[in-house]
Amino acid sequence: MTPQDRIEIAVNSALHRAQRRPAPPKLASALEYAVLPGGARVRPMLCMSVALACGDDKPRLSAAGATALELIHCASLVHDDLPCFDDADIRRGKPSVHKAFGEEIAVLAGDTLIILAFETIALQAADDCARAAGLIQTLATSSGSPDGICAGQAWESEANVNLDAYHRAKTGALFTAATRMGAVAAGADPHEWEELGARIGEAYQVADDLRDALLDEEELGKPAGQDTVHDRPNAVTEFGIKGAAQKLNDSLSAAITSIPACPGEAQLCALVRKQAERLTPMAFHPVTV
Amino acid sequence: MTPQDRIEIAVNSALHRAQRRPAPPKLASALEYAVLPGGARVRPMLCMSVALACGDDKPRLSAAGATALELIHCASLVHDDLPCFDDADIRRGKPSVHKAFGEEIAVLAGDTLIILAFETIALQAADDCARAAGLIQTLATSSGSPDGICAGQAWESEANVNLDAYHRAKTGALFTAATRMGAVAAGADPHEWEELGARIGEAYQVADDLRDALLDEEELGKPAGQDTVHDRPNAVTEFGIKGAAQKLNDSLSAAITSIPACPGEAQLCALVRKQAERLTPMAFHPVTV
Repeated sequence: MTPQDRIEIAVNSALHRAQRRPAPPKLASALEYAVLPGGARVRPMLCMSVALACGDDKPRLSAAGATALELIHCASLVHDDLPCFDDADIRRGKPSVHKAFGEEIAVLAGDTLIILAFETIALQAADDCARAAGLIQTLATSSGSPDGICAGQAWESEANVNLDAYHRAKTGALFTAATRMGAVAAGADPHEWEELGARIGEAYQVADDLRDALLDEEELGKPAGQDTVHDRPNAVTEFGIKGAAQKLNDSLSAAITSIPACPGEAQLCALVRKQAERLTPMAFHPVTV
Repeated sequence: MTPQDRIEIAVNSALHRAQRRPAPPKLASALEYAVLPGGARVRPMLCMSVALACGDDKPRLSAAGATALELIHCASLVHDDLPCFDDADIRRGKPSVHKAFGEEIAVLAGDTLIILAFETIALQAADDCARAAGLIQTLATSSGSPDGICAGQAWESEANVNLDAYHRAKTGALFTAATRMGAVAAGADPHEWEELGARIGEAYQVADDLRDALLDEEELGKPAGQDTVHDRPNAVTEFGIKGAAQKLNDSLSAAITSIPACPGEAQLCALVRKQAERLTPMAFHPVTV
């Protein structure tokens, strides 16, 4: 089974748990709507890839960790789209959750997905309880405050932004969590894998900034030019388009260099290169990493 | 140290973790504002009391479980007060979190408190990993969907309400979680303790309905008559004031009868009686349980 298939099966199984009777029908539908069909599943794929590179001796734990990352990511999209934040009508090419189901169900769907993420890991604790606890701690650190995506989003409500903390928390946190959790699930040292997640997160953020600046709403599947509208820090504004493309390239090179010696090192390098191509707007292909 | 002191210390310690640098200042303030000063800490006290009655051989785990319950409860209050739900301006006698900090910080504070709840338990996993995993699973079940407070709240967005599922999930879930988690933390059988939580939850709901019908905003510390305004199921509407008072009495008697034989049985009965007095509106004192 491919890693992609393992992720989709685990995500669906978590969803079904939250949707089973007597779940209220609108909430049950909204949970599925928020998670399926997925985006590129970048974070869970990264988690799974690191676990595989480290031997993946507890495959249910790595699948649970990958699923939990995606559920938290989807929850953050649902809440970030709410009228009090981005007020986004469109996400992944379809109406955002609050547009389709109402604001109250969108708030609850986000909450439920967060809870489901932690539950998904805890349910596999019997396979290796210490690793499960490590996965939950890492996920919590990368989601909450002071270093997680909630804190990252909250910086947007401050007059004086700690830019370094903002970037690390807003986008970087779930990427470093992905590589760390892949390592934890496979019993490897998570510290050795943190740099890879940080560099890929950085690349992903710059790529997102480039796409936000270069593509239109139809190509993006969400409103374009949002960083300018919301006056958010953006690599294109800061470095120009060429500078941002160079930064993207540098981050991906650094990511590949950082990969520790491990059984699956070659496959992992190939995967990062593939992700890099996917990330880079057409105008800048090929990225030479 | 009293159980109350242990709870306050553990709650404060969890808060400080989420507030430490580089937490964004508004979010950090809102987290504290949502949790301190507390209400009666009914759910964590119930959890702690059951743990003590069962021997409380892992006191850091019982304190973590109790804290996690309170953090989830506070998160639910913050989100339930949002304009898309109750649109409540006042909570615990002061402006609600979104009134004081804005809607976006209120959404993020709720999310952060949910995450902090799971993290708080996971951080004590070294004391007994299997029990920690059991605590996290129980907390997730009672918070999410289909049987937790998110599902309970989501029933209020449905045209056809499953009343039984609604009541069990909306109020009952965190009470059965409290007794079950107290037992899990102390290594006892959670099933034996479920009935106690369910009956106290029932009593608490009826008492809340009586208070909502009989007291004014100043006495309640929140808007009065909200069940009528939002057309929510309510024991006073259903059974009248006398009938509801009788139901409150019956639930508390059933709660005391359900307490399993354990070292701390007598103290626990006394505590339930004391809670009963606190719950019952003055007009119906004394409750003879």
